Amino acid sequence: MQVTIINIGDELLIGQVVNTNASTMSRLLTAAGMDVLKTMVVGDERQAIWNAVDEAMRESDAVLVTGGLGPTKDDITKKLLCEYFGSELVESPMALDNVKRIFESRGYELTPVNRAQALVPKCCEVLNNDLGTAPCMWFPGKTVLVSLPGVPFEMEWLMRNRVIPKLQETFHTDIIVTKNILVQGIGESFLSDLIEPWELSLPEHIKLAYLPVAGLTKLRLTVHGNYDPAILKGLYDLAGKYIVGEDCETLDELVHTTLIKRGLTLATAESCTGGNIARLLTAQAGASAYFKGGIVAYSNEVKESVLGVKHSTLAAHGAVSEATVREMAEGVRQRLGTDLAIATTGIAGPDGGTKEKPVGTVWIAVANANGTEAKLLQFGANRRQQNIDRSTNQAFAMLIRMICQKH
Amino acid sequence: MQVTIINIGDELLIGQVVNTNASTMSRLLTAAGMDVLKTMVVGDERQAIWNAVDEAMRESDAVLVTGGLGPTKDDITKKLLCEYFGSELVESPMALDNVKRIFESRGYELTPVNRAQALVPKCCEVLNNDLGTAPCMWFPGKTVLVSLPGVPFEMEWLMRNRVIPKLQETFHTDIIVTKNILVQGIGESFLSDLIEPWELSLPEHIKLAYLPVAGLTKLRLTVHGNYDPAILKGLYDLAGKYIVGEDCETLDELVHTTLIKRGLTLATAESCTGGNIARLLTAQAGASAYFKGGIVAYSNEVKESVLGVKHSTLAAHGAVSEATVREMAEGVRQRLGTDLAIATTGIAGPDGGTKEKPVGTVWIAVANANGTEAKLLQFGANRRQQNIDRSTNQAFAMLIRMICQKH
Repeated sequence: MQVTIINIGDELLIGQVVNTNASTMSRLLTAAGMDVLKTMVVGDERQAIWNAVDEAMRESDAVLVTGGLGPTKDDITKKLLCEYFGSELVESPMALDNVKRIFESRGYELTPVNRAQALVPKCCEVLNNDLGTAPCMWFPGKTVLVSLPGVPFEMEWLMRNRVIPKLQETFHTDIIVTKNILVQGIGESFLSDLIEPWELSLPEHIKLAYLPVAGLTKLRLTVHGNYDPAILKGLYDLAGKYIVGEDCETLDELVHTTLIKRGLTLATAESCTGGNIARLLTAQAGASAYFKGGIVAYSNEVKESVLGVKHSTLAAHGAVSEATVREMAEGVRQRLGTDLAIATTGIAGPDGGTKEKPVGTVWIAVANANGTEAKLLQFGANRRQQNIDRSTNQAFAMLIRMICQKH
Repeated sequence: MQVTIINIGDELLIGQVVNTNASTMSRLLTAAGMDVLKTMVVGDERQAIWNAVDEAMRESDAVLVTGGLGPTKDDITKKLLCEYFGSELVESPMALDNVKRIFESRGYELTPVNRAQALVPKCCEVLNNDLGTAPCMWFPGKTVLVSLPGVPFEMEWLMRNRVIPKLQETFHTDIIVTKNILVQGIGESFLSDLIEPWELSLPEHIKLAYLPVAGLTKLRLTVHGNYDPAILKGLYDLAGKYIVGEDCETLDELVHTTLIKRGLTLATAESCTGGNIARLLTAQAGASAYFKGGIVAYSNEVKESVLGVKHSTLAAHGAVSEATVREMAEGVRQRLGTDLAIATTGIAGPDGGTKEKPVGTVWIAVANANGTEAKLLQFGANRRQQNIDRSTNQAFAMLIRMICQKH
């Protein structure tokens, strides 16, 4: 069963907003055994929307459209779909009840602009949107079209609770298994050479993809049909020492589940990563089970006063040095009383580099009761966000290796 | 001049990766006066790529394709384009020099897999990719096609330094002005009612869009032609008290530029936002001019030991309370010796709520030498990331208002 996704919005076409809706929808559809054939983004322009819908209706079993359903004047999707399906707008009692309920719960008066949100094409079925005032509209037919609001959390709730169950009911769907393996410490092309014999031995119904992200390569197996975990033995034989984890999307997810499983606590002392490590961990529900807290020690004063890095260390070696990163990790571990600690200090760029310590020079340390390990990274690149992301992933990989070898 | 973007990659279609390339490319093209007609994502499938390219070639002046250029077996773009343009693969001396240079600089041996990256269709012009081994290929013609690597930083560098200058040289391009106004403290539909008279008075060449993100509404004016700043007076007359800034994409950018301009320093004490405020500020180059550091005080022990929140305050009022958030803001401001401080404490969810303090209850405080302002927010929603993002934006808006009123 093949699905096309159309996301509507000028803000997407001019690049003001990253289109997370497409990836959320794709992930949910794939997990439910449906194939995403294509995703498209078009602006709030009548002809562009019409053409995209018309094309998608001809080549897919289902077309999911987001956006353009708000109460404001730049939102034109509903009227256009009404015309496309040769229907007329009528007030839906269910949609009106929903709009009233939401306005009452917020203590607001219903304005005419908001009441108009309950108007829908006569030929569609309204799927109730518990989280917002824009209706979700299901247009039945040989190819089904579903129109959803573009607000990410409303869209996601509707996908999970209304659209996917109804698609599964309407269409017959295959089972697809996706398996992730996280590999760190080897570049994509070297990894490709190393595991080539295994890759060539994979059966036809298993597809392998390489996905390098910030110093990490995610290997993704997509399995249409039966999956036997024994298939991974050949991969581990060739590249086992580079594999840091399985069955997770990211290293922060792996750190999160590993620390919870092992009952260990963590503190962070971040300079160049600026809080990125802490926020990735705390973005996950349940982080308070292991994460006690972190210090973003951006200035040297804070490294001294809050983390206890010695003034003489900073004077002799500088903030970006092995001695400093070790004292940061040990200081935060001791002050916050945790089993484990991570520390980062470096020059993320684009400015601040010197000849001895160019932009991209980063020291990372992880500490536990047995000691501290520190590593120098030289990304050699003038790209701030990438240096932050790579430092973050390196820190997570070092922590995972420390936990798995030493506990 | 109309551009279509095609991003290739199974990882995008199954939703494992958010497609940031489309938004980066769209932003750069728009800023250079080019219209993005449509963006499409297709998987690593021959027929899907072929159809997307063929369709885009018929309806655009330029087609930009990313992805599928890596050294691994799932990358098929180059061969397919070679066939599409009826050409043959030849080794490009320039591309080979580039591959060699990059491998030498990293101290690696050149493998046959990597040498094959220098093969390109004979009919294309190679645009040198200074940052990576995959070549950027320009196929001239009535409609131009450009194939770029999908690695985000390589793609962005190539867009800025190679592709856009060459597109501007090849095509005549209009000037488009984009103007952002950040509005906070009023919902989208109420804002729409409030500013309707102004909106209706806008001339035809100015288009208005509403973009709500995490408690903030970005109003975007897209101007094809002349822009007179006086057009904003009507907006300020109607909604001035809700406007927190202009000419920036996000509130963290506004805080960053405001603090640098005014020479003020900042510290953060984050509980429910978990480091998100610090990492957004430090993601911007130059943050060390004002950001001294932050404490991610996730546990109560850290609130006490590092921030100096009184044990009796936590015992009497709890961690999520006005008294605690005030002591957090004042504590971090005093300990880190800054002009300003931000503090957050709340229940981001999905667990941890009680009847008195349900999930979505958040206290935010901002402090300066004149005192502390605290605000209770009740998002009433069980969505962790949204609660974190909204709390972050509220904190930034409160800080901006404090700076602009009181300094």
